[in-house]
Amino acid sequence: MNYPNGIKKEIQNKTINYKNRGMRLEDDLNITNKYYIENKIAYIYKKPTPIKVVKASYNKSGGRVITEAYYSEPSTTDYNGIYKGNYIDFEAKETKNKQGFPIANIHSHQIEHIRNIEKENGICFLIVRFTSLDKTFLLEAKYFLNYLDNIKKSNISINYFEEYGHLIKNKLLKRVDYLEIIDKIWRNYEKK
Amino acid sequence: MNYPNGIKKEIQNKTINYKNRGMRLEDDLNITNKYYIENKIAYIYKKPTPIKVVKASYNKSGGRVITEAYYSEPSTTDYNGIYKGNYIDFEAKETKNKQGFPIANIHSHQIEHIRNIEKENGICFLIVRFTSLDKTFLLEAKYFLNYLDNIKKSNISINYFEEYGHLIKNKLLKRVDYLEIIDKIWRNYEKK
Repeated sequence: MNYPNGIKKEIQNKTINYKNRGMRLEDDLNITNKYYIENKIAYIYKKPTPIKVVKASYNKSGGRVITEAYYSEPSTTDYNGIYKGNYIDFEAKETKNKQGFPIANIHSHQIEHIRNIEKENGICFLIVRFTSLDKTFLLEAKYFLNYLDNIKKSNISINYFEEYGHLIKNKLLKRVDYLEIIDKIWRNYEKK
Repeated sequence: MNYPNGIKKEIQNKTINYKNRGMRLEDDLNITNKYYIENKIAYIYKKPTPIKVVKASYNKSGGRVITEAYYSEPSTTDYNGIYKGNYIDFEAKETKNKQGFPIANIHSHQIEHIRNIEKENGICFLIVRFTSLDKTFLLEAKYFLNYLDNIKKSNISINYFEEYGHLIKNKLLKRVDYLEIIDKIWRNYEKK
């Protein structure tokens, strides 16, 4: 079997990772994306975190060291890439909330970006993990935007995810196999 | 006319920008991409520079300050996004060299990424500016890879760019209007 780099280490460290709940979805997505890349399924990457560098200097060996910098707000979603020739774009979030997902977790710039990608016919969605329920959903951008524009509550209820979203199965190698859901959505469109 | 944010300032500061040659192509691309985004033409962004954070603390007002960090090597190209429903991916580089473009300017991970995107039928290319000649070319990934695989020299000669690349015109608002070239390439394919 083709193990992505570092996956064995990740599996060994699973107990440790479980403690660090805030990082889990991102870790799982990194492992999944590595699996996709190394098996030539899709080329989807997390964008680096935007950081504004204020001060940098050179260390003894001539390398650059950043000594003052700040995290800045992303202008787009965190993940994008290509799958079967299609542009893929998504944002991933975790919440401890059991009733719903607080929309405030998505910055206004990101919402505007999601609208743009949806209009441009990109494959755009959210991946939301409810950590307390141990459930991870894919919600297509059109349903996310419909909620924003028509239902207008500050939380997207878990019921909305159950009805309009797709539950993503946990797997060993493809931890969050969201492309399986994309394939399913495409098959459903073809049937119509 | 619809001016992208900050473009008037950019035009006023043109003299200053010209001095800072190393930054010019990136600045021009940022202005061009802003123009595309604000006019709903395309949604293409530069990825943030990857930075590995080693130490961070909280300042008096509770914000996070990064106090030790290092630049790390990018695993993909710097720019990607969507245009007319198509996945777009490119790397942009400047060189002072008049004879050719040193391939060493593109990291091996980036070359592998370009191969992957090309196979996946993404629209993939390089934008190379020869600062001493004041010429900027778009070179499609297939011609770049052909050079690597068959010609195998360490520099891509200016003649190769003249023959297989496309000269990008300088414009006031769309400083590096590379999508005009993509449209031209598509029209040529349709004719065949």
